[in-house]
Amino acid sequence: MLKVPQHQVAGHEAGIGKLGPLVDESGRFYKPLQGDERGASEVAFYTSLSTNSGIPEHIQRFFSTFYGTQLVEASDGSGLLPHLVLEDLALGRVNPSIMDIKIGSRTWAPEAPEKYIQKCLKKDRESSSLSLGFRISGLQIYRSKELGFWKPGKKAAQKLSREEVKLVLRRFVSSNTLNDLDSRPDCAFASTVYGGSTGILSQLLELKAWFEDQTIFHLYSCSILVIFEKELALKGKNPGAQIKLIDFAHVYEGRGVIDHNFLGGLCSLIKFISEILTAPNECGIEVSAKADQKNLTADNGVVADHKNLTDSDNGVVAIQKNLTTSDNGVVADQKNLTVSDNGVLADQKNLTASDDNCVVADQNGVS
Amino acid sequence: MLKVPQHQVAGHEAGIGKLGPLVDESGRFYKPLQGDERGASEVAFYTSLSTNSGIPEHIQRFFSTFYGTQLVEASDGSGLLPHLVLEDLALGRVNPSIMDIKIGSRTWAPEAPEKYIQKCLKKDRESSSLSLGFRISGLQIYRSKELGFWKPGKKAAQKLSREEVKLVLRRFVSSNTLNDLDSRPDCAFASTVYGGSTGILSQLLELKAWFEDQTIFHLYSCSILVIFEKELALKGKNPGAQIKLIDFAHVYEGRGVIDHNFLGGLCSLIKFISEILTAPNECGIEVSAKADQKNLTADNGVVADHKNLTDSDNGVVAIQKNLTTSDNGVVADQKNLTVSDNGVLADQKNLTASDDNCVVADQNGVS
Repeated sequence: MLKVPQHQVAGHEAGIGKLGPLVDESGRFYKPLQGDERGASEVAFYTSLSTNSGIPEHIQRFFSTFYGTQLVEASDGSGLLPHLVLEDLALGRVNPSIMDIKIGSRTWAPEAPEKYIQKCLKKDRESSSLSLGFRISGLQIYRSKELGFWKPGKKAAQKLSREEVKLVLRRFVSSNTLNDLDSRPDCAFASTVYGGSTGILSQLLELKAWFEDQTIFHLYSCSILVIFEKELALKGKNPGAQIKLIDFAHVYEGRGVIDHNFLGGLCSLIKFISEILTAPNECGIEVSAKADQKNLTADNGVVADHKNLTDSDNGVVAIQKNLTTSDNGVVADQKNLTVSDNGVLADQKNLTASDDNCVVADQNGVS
Repeated sequence: MLKVPQHQVAGHEAGIGKLGPLVDESGRFYKPLQGDERGASEVAFYTSLSTNSGIPEHIQRFFSTFYGTQLVEASDGSGLLPHLVLEDLALGRVNPSIMDIKIGSRTWAPEAPEKYIQKCLKKDRESSSLSLGFRISGLQIYRSKELGFWKPGKKAAQKLSREEVKLVLRRFVSSNTLNDLDSRPDCAFASTVYGGSTGILSQLLELKAWFEDQTIFHLYSCSILVIFEKELALKGKNPGAQIKLIDFAHVYEGRGVIDHNFLGGLCSLIKFISEILTAPNECGIEVSAKADQKNLTADNGVVADHKNLTDSDNGVVAIQKNLTTSDNGVVADQKNLTVSDNGVLADQKNLTASDDNCVVADQNGVS
């Protein structure tokens, strides 16, 4: 019996009259083949993956297992349609927190049709892709049994500003996401999820080493899915932090050139994650000591240029007022935060409710 | 007494009625300030360089020494104009071979004016920037006392195709550039110029490590200048291989994000150079063993898709006919090439004049 997946955060969602992916109980994920050349391209990619010996074994684990294609009853009721059959990445996971991060400042290949290029370029410029080298295409963060997930709308997620992306990457590994309006992401799970020899950063670095060398594929509009289970982390168990590469409708031959577009974006993501690990209590806001950082600091010491952060229309909101900066530009008033040996905040009770709020509000609630 | 520099390979050239850079005998390079914000931006960058402590000492050597600005008689006879005063990178060099490589698949910042973005995007798409992550903006390769330099026109250099760029990077460190029509670049100086602990690759890797971390600057349309002296290499002396970063008219604040665009392009260049070092006798043509490399191999075993290589109009030409490929896709008929221990071709006399020509022709001669 096929059903709509519970934990999809980006891409087309299945529903009444809507064509989207399905899952079965044995752990297979059915992705409807896009009718145009994108579908064919993705099938070709997965087929070549399973036959191409150019991909080393330790890298193959970053791709979903591929079980071929199959005609199944489409989710929109339109009858039998060909689907890609893949491994269901959420299988066996209870309440996984998931981010879908589209890698690359450019989501289009030089060889793509002009109309498609213009469409993608517009999206890249309107999202954080161009400035950060990646954009968050969708996410869900588990909060608690009662509150369920924090899951901003897809459009909202894609329009996160640079500072909001920083906050979301911290919030993703934080324990204090219950009462969102008065909390700073504490990054309580940063060291267990992002850090460690099997954590997200370590996996990203492995992927990076491969992308510095591989000239087989150029992956445009491809995502890295980041998954872990907060409940396991809370119990002190291995949270099952894992990355997977997904979405290969726009794969091109590398023809002897590395995928510098993917690699650049990947390095940018790595830098963001590294910074969380080295400074988990900085709340995602970094104000450099550079003298000419003219757009960042207003006269009264308040961090300016955050106009998007107070815009509550898009379902992902941050209210960020009166953030005072110290002389060296680093967010001040963190003195009450006690930090444990492993860099994780130990005692959240000492967090004073100061004027220095740094908040991601939750306007969406459970989705 | 100011004069026109002898070894400029890209950018504006000084001449009668033409505004361009000048040099003096004491080793200073005078670059006219561009009248618009680009000039101001470059001055601001160099000024911040000399005061910004964020750049580690081992990285500062990749920038030219800055001596402030000065009003000097402009090269076009238009009177006194403000110039940037920099170190003359060609000072003390006899017949240097030089490449100016513009780094980044994108030469424009997200914040740039729309008209400028469109202009740059067009150039990026028409050159190798988009596909390779960099483009050769200009070059001169020293051949001999009699023949002087091989110096293709600037426009020609910028329009080099992927395969031509590979060939030029090999030709740059080759000894057999005298009779260009019947030679394959031998990469005789690859190990001494590109390789070694102080060679070009090592310097590029140092720069890369910094770009993986630094979030101070984003450098658009910035170039890496690669210099060495072939005559010294021929004499078995240190060829003075060196890279320098130049052209900072489009520098933006990094604001906490790495320069993923520059980094991606830099990694791509690094991969090209590495490949020359690991396979100096492959003549720049790599045909992968991938089954679906459909565009590369024509039915008769002749490498297809090289239509640009026979186009002799642009002043940089390659004639590449009958290049037969062996079963594994690697260019065959290299059996007569003997290779010395260090990977450098030892005995060029054994090179047979076979049908498998792989030639970069010299249509321009001495410039």
